[in-house]
Amino acid sequence: MGITLAQLASRLGCEFDGDATCQISGIATLQDATEGELSFLASSKYRADLATTAASVVIVAAQDRDACPVNTLIAKDPYLTYARAAQLLYPDDCRAGGIHPTALVDERAQVDPSAWIDAHCVIGPDVTVAANVQIAAGCVLDRDVTVGQNSRLMANVTIHGRASLGERCIIQPGAVIGSDGFGYANDQGRWVRIPQVGDVVLGDDVEVGANTTIDRGALSATVIENGVKLDNQIQIAHNVHIGEHTAIAGCSGVAGSTRIGSHCAIGGHVGIVGHLTIADGVQISAKTFVSQSIHEAGFYSSGAPLEPNAHWRRNFVRMKQLDEMAQRIKALEKMVHELSNDG
Amino acid sequence: MGITLAQLASRLGCEFDGDATCQISGIATLQDATEGELSFLASSKYRADLATTAASVVIVAAQDRDACPVNTLIAKDPYLTYARAAQLLYPDDCRAGGIHPTALVDERAQVDPSAWIDAHCVIGPDVTVAANVQIAAGCVLDRDVTVGQNSRLMANVTIHGRASLGERCIIQPGAVIGSDGFGYANDQGRWVRIPQVGDVVLGDDVEVGANTTIDRGALSATVIENGVKLDNQIQIAHNVHIGEHTAIAGCSGVAGSTRIGSHCAIGGHVGIVGHLTIADGVQISAKTFVSQSIHEAGFYSSGAPLEPNAHWRRNFVRMKQLDEMAQRIKALEKMVHELSNDG
Amino acid sequence: MGITLAQLASRLGCEFDGDATCQISGIATLQDATEGELSFLASSKYRADLATTAASVVIVAAQDRDACPVNTLIAKDPYLTYARAAQLLYPDDCRAGGIHPTALVDERAQVDPSAWIDAHCVIGPDVTVAANVQIAAGCVLDRDVTVGQNSRLMANVTIHGRASLGERCIIQPGAVIGSDGFGYANDQGRWVRIPQVGDVVLGDDVEVGANTTIDRGALSATVIENGVKLDNQIQIAHNVHIGEHTAIAGCSGVAGSTRIGSHCAIGGHVGIVGHLTIADGVQISAKTFVSQSIHEAGFYSSGAPLEPNAHWRRNFVRMKQLDEMAQRIKALEKMVHELSNDG
Repeated sequence: MGITLAQLASRLGCEFDGDATCQISGIATLQDATEGELSFLASSKYRADLATTAASVVIVAAQDRDACPVNTLIAKDPYLTYARAAQLLYPDDCRAGGIHPTALVDERAQVDPSAWIDAHCVIGPDVTVAANVQIAAGCVLDRDVTVGQNSRLMANVTIHGRASLGERCIIQPGAVIGSDGFGYANDQGRWVRIPQVGDVVLGDDVEVGANTTIDRGALSATVIENGVKLDNQIQIAHNVHIGEHTAIAGCSGVAGSTRIGSHCAIGGHVGIVGHLTIADGVQISAKTFVSQSIHEAGFYSSGAPLEPNAHWRRNFVRMKQLDEMAQRIKALEKMVHELSNDG
Repeated sequence: MGITLAQLASRLGCEFDGDATCQISGIATLQDATEGELSFLASSKYRADLATTAASVVIVAAQDRDACPVNTLIAKDPYLTYARAAQLLYPDDCRAGGIHPTALVDERAQVDPSAWIDAHCVIGPDVTVAANVQIAAGCVLDRDVTVGQNSRLMANVTIHGRASLGERCIIQPGAVIGSDGFGYANDQGRWVRIPQVGDVVLGDDVEVGANTTIDRGALSATVIENGVKLDNQIQIAHNVHIGEHTAIAGCSGVAGSTRIGSHCAIGGHVGIVGHLTIADGVQISAKTFVSQSIHEAGFYSSGAPLEPNAHWRRNFVRMKQLDEMAQRIKALEKMVHELSNDG
Repeated sequence: MGITLAQLASRLGCEFDGDATCQISGIATLQDATEGELSFLASSKYRADLATTAASVVIVAAQDRDACPVNTLIAKDPYLTYARAAQLLYPDDCRAGGIHPTALVDERAQVDPSAWIDAHCVIGPDVTVAANVQIAAGCVLDRDVTVGQNSRLMANVTIHGRASLGERCIIQPGAVIGSDGFGYANDQGRWVRIPQVGDVVLGDDVEVGANTTIDRGALSATVIENGVKLDNQIQIAHNVHIGEHTAIAGCSGVAGSTRIGSHCAIGGHVGIVGHLTIADGVQISAKTFVSQSIHEAGFYSSGAPLEPNAHWRRNFVRMKQLDEMAQRIKALEKMVHELSNDG
C-alpha cells in the first residue's frame, strides 16, 4: 500500500515539512531506509544517521526538524507515531470470513460468518467465535471457549476451556491458554491431583507471545486484564491476576494466586513466587527474583553482577560467608571502639 | 453430577455433621461458594471466611467443626479431602473409544478399541495405545511410542520415539516428549551433531505441563519415574533421571545426565546443571541455581533479595568486591589484634 | 544397518586394532554395550569401565589402546569420532519425496519433488521448500518462508514469514520461528503495537530446540548465522544477531537487538538483556545474568551459591547491606590506621 506524506500526516494528525505528494510505501531504520520509505528518530543516539539517511520521510520531534535533510513528519513522540504509521502501512493480513474445508467446527459451536477458521483447526462444542476473528491453521479450541471480535490466533494455538478472550486479542503461535494448573495435595508422599475447574479470562487488547502458557484457575479464574502484553515463553500459573496495561517480557514466570497491579513493566526471566501482591506501576528489571510482595510503585531489582569466571568464583564463595563477615565487622567495630576509648 | 453429603462422606471415608441429604454439585472457595457447593478450610488464614460462607458444606479438620455454621465433612487433611472430592465431582471428560475420521493411524500402530484418538492426530508406525487412553486433537506420536492405559494427552502434544508412557499419565497441551537432546562434539569450532538414539521412559501417574519438553536419551534413557509431576515450560535434558513422586514447578530446567532423587519438591525457575546427583527428599526454593550435587535431604536455596533498584545498584557493585572485602576484614582483624596486644 | 570394523575405520579415517570383520550395528556406553555394539572412551573417568565392557569395539585415544581388551578404533578425539560414527550407524530416517494427501500446499508455494511434506501440514503462499527437505506432521509454514535443502522440520513446528532457513537445518517439535517481536510504543499508559515486519534468517546447519521461539525482526532481520545450535525453550527476541557456531543451552533468553559473536558457548537459563554486544569466543556459565556488553573472549559468570535454606536466609539479608558493610570496613580501616599512628 502506498500513501502520500500529506495523507499520512493527516491520518496521524501531525504536521509535516517538505513534499506533500511524496509516496511512502514502507518503513525502515535511518540506516537501511531507501527511497519511498519512512523512518524515525526516536533516540538522540541515532541523530548522526539523519545526515546520511536515504529515507524519503523521517518522523522527528520538533526540535530535530531542522537537522533533518529530507521530508519530515513532526511528532511529539516519534516512536509512538512510528508505531501508528506502521499500523497504517502494514495492515494485518486478514482473510474473508469462512471455514476452511479441513477445519472441524462442532455443531454446538457458534462461528460468526465474518470470522475465518483456517485449515485443520478444531473448534469444539460451546465455543463462540465473534465477528472478524482470524484463527490460523492448526489451532484447537477445545470447548467452552469464547473469542471476542477482531481477535487473531496465530497457528498451532491451543485453548482449553473454560476460557474467554476479549476483543482485538493477538495470540502468537504455540501459546497455550487454559491448561490445567499445577495443583496437588500430598498424601503420604504421593501427589493427588486437584481437578482444575476455574476459568481463564483475557480482557480486550491482550497479546500473548509464542509458546506462552496461561493456566486456568483451580476454582476461581485466572484473569488477564485489558491491554496486558505478554512476551514469549511466559508461564502464568493458576489464579494469577494481572492488572490493565501491564507488560511482561519473555521467559518470566508468575506462580499461583499472585496478583500483579496495572501499568507494571516486568523484565525478562523474572520469577515471581505465588500468593504475592505487586502494586500498580511497579517496574522490575530482568532476571529479578520477586520473593515478597511489593507495596509501592517504583523500580525493583535483584541479581548478581556479571564477572570473569575466576573473579566470580572467589566472590561466589564469599556470598556464603556474608553473615559471618557482618558479624566480624561488628566485632571489629566493638574492639576498635574499645581501643579508641583506651587510647 | 450431584451427590448428597452422606454419599460424599461415604465415598471419601469421612464423618460429617449436618443434613445428610444436602445436594452438592460443585466446589468453590469459602468466599465464592453458593448453595449446592462444597468448600474447604485448608489454612487457618481463611478461618474468618467460615462465618460468612454460603457454601452448603465445608470440609474442615475436627478442631474447626464447631466453628463452621454450615454442614461439614470432617477430614484429617482438608486439602487432600478437597482434592479427592473434586475428583469425584469433576470427573474427567472422556470420549468413548474410537478414531476420528481425520486422524491418521499407521497400519503398524496398535490402538485399543477403548482408546479415543481425536481429530487430525497422527499415530505413526509401531505406536501402541492402550485401553481407555484419550488423545486430543492435533497430537503427533511419531513412531515407537507406547502410551499406557488411562493416560490422557491434551491437544497438540508431540511425542517422538522411542518413548514409553505409563498408565494414568496426563500430558498438557504443547508438551514435547522425545525431542533430540542437545548433544554435539566440537570439531575445530564447528559443532558435530551426535544422533540421539536413547529412549524416554515415563512411569505411571506422571504429569507433564503445557509446553514442557523432555528430551530422549543420547544412548541410554531419560527416565521420569512413577508419580512425578512437572509443571509448564520445564526443560528436561537427555539422560536426566527423576525419582518417584518428585514435583518440579514451572520454568525450571534440568541439564543432561543429572539424577534427581524421589520425593523432591523443586520450585519454579530453578536451574540444575548437568551430571549432578540430588538426594531423595530435597526441597529447592524458586529461582535457585543448583551448581553442585546435594547429598542430603533438606531445604536448599540461592539467589539475591529484591530491592529498590537504586539500593540494588550500590549492593550489586559490592558483590564484585566481596573477596576483597573479606581480605580487608582479615587484615583489620590482624591489625586490631596487634593493637590490642600492644595496648 | 551393520558395518564391519574395517569399513567403519575406513569411513572415519581411523586406524583400528583387532578383528577387521567384526560387525557393528549400534552404539552404547561402555557399561551398557553388548556384542555387536560400538562404545567410546571420551573421559578418563570412565577408564575403569574398559576392563569390563562387553562392547565389540571401543573408540579410544592412542594412549588408551593397550588398556582396551576388545577391538579398538583409534581416534585423536574419541568423542568427535563417536559423533561421526553415530551419524553413520543411525542415519536420519528420511521419507521419499512427496506430499501427504492431507497436507495443504498453496498453489503459490514451490515444493521440490524430492521433499517430503507429512500429514496435516499447511504450506502457505510464496513458501519455497528445497530438495530433500523433510517436514513432519502438523507443521505450518505460513507464507514467504524458504527452507533450504536437506533441512528437517519435526512435528508441529510453526514458521511465520518472512523467514528463511538455510541448508541442513534441524528444527525440533513445537519450535516457533518468525513470531512477532515484543514491540510497543507507550501512549499515556497504553501499549500501542508496532507491526513487526522484519525477516528472520537462519543460516546453514542451524539447529533449533523443541519449543524454542525466534521472533522476526521489527524492521530489519533477526539473524542466526551458520552452525548455530539452540537448545530447547530458548527465546530469541527481535533483531538479535547470533554469530556462527555459537551454541546456547536450554531456557536461555536473549532480548531485542543484542548481538552475540561467533563461537560462543552460553549455558542454560542465561538471561541476556537487550542492545548488548557479546564478543566472539565468549563462554557464559548457566544462570548468568548478562546485564552489560562483553568485549573480550573469556569465561563469564554471575549468580549466588546454593546453600541450606537457613544459612541462605541469613546471607540473603546481608546482601542488602553490602554497601553499608563496605562503608563500615572503610571507616574501620581509617580508625585502625589512626590508632596505629597514635601507637
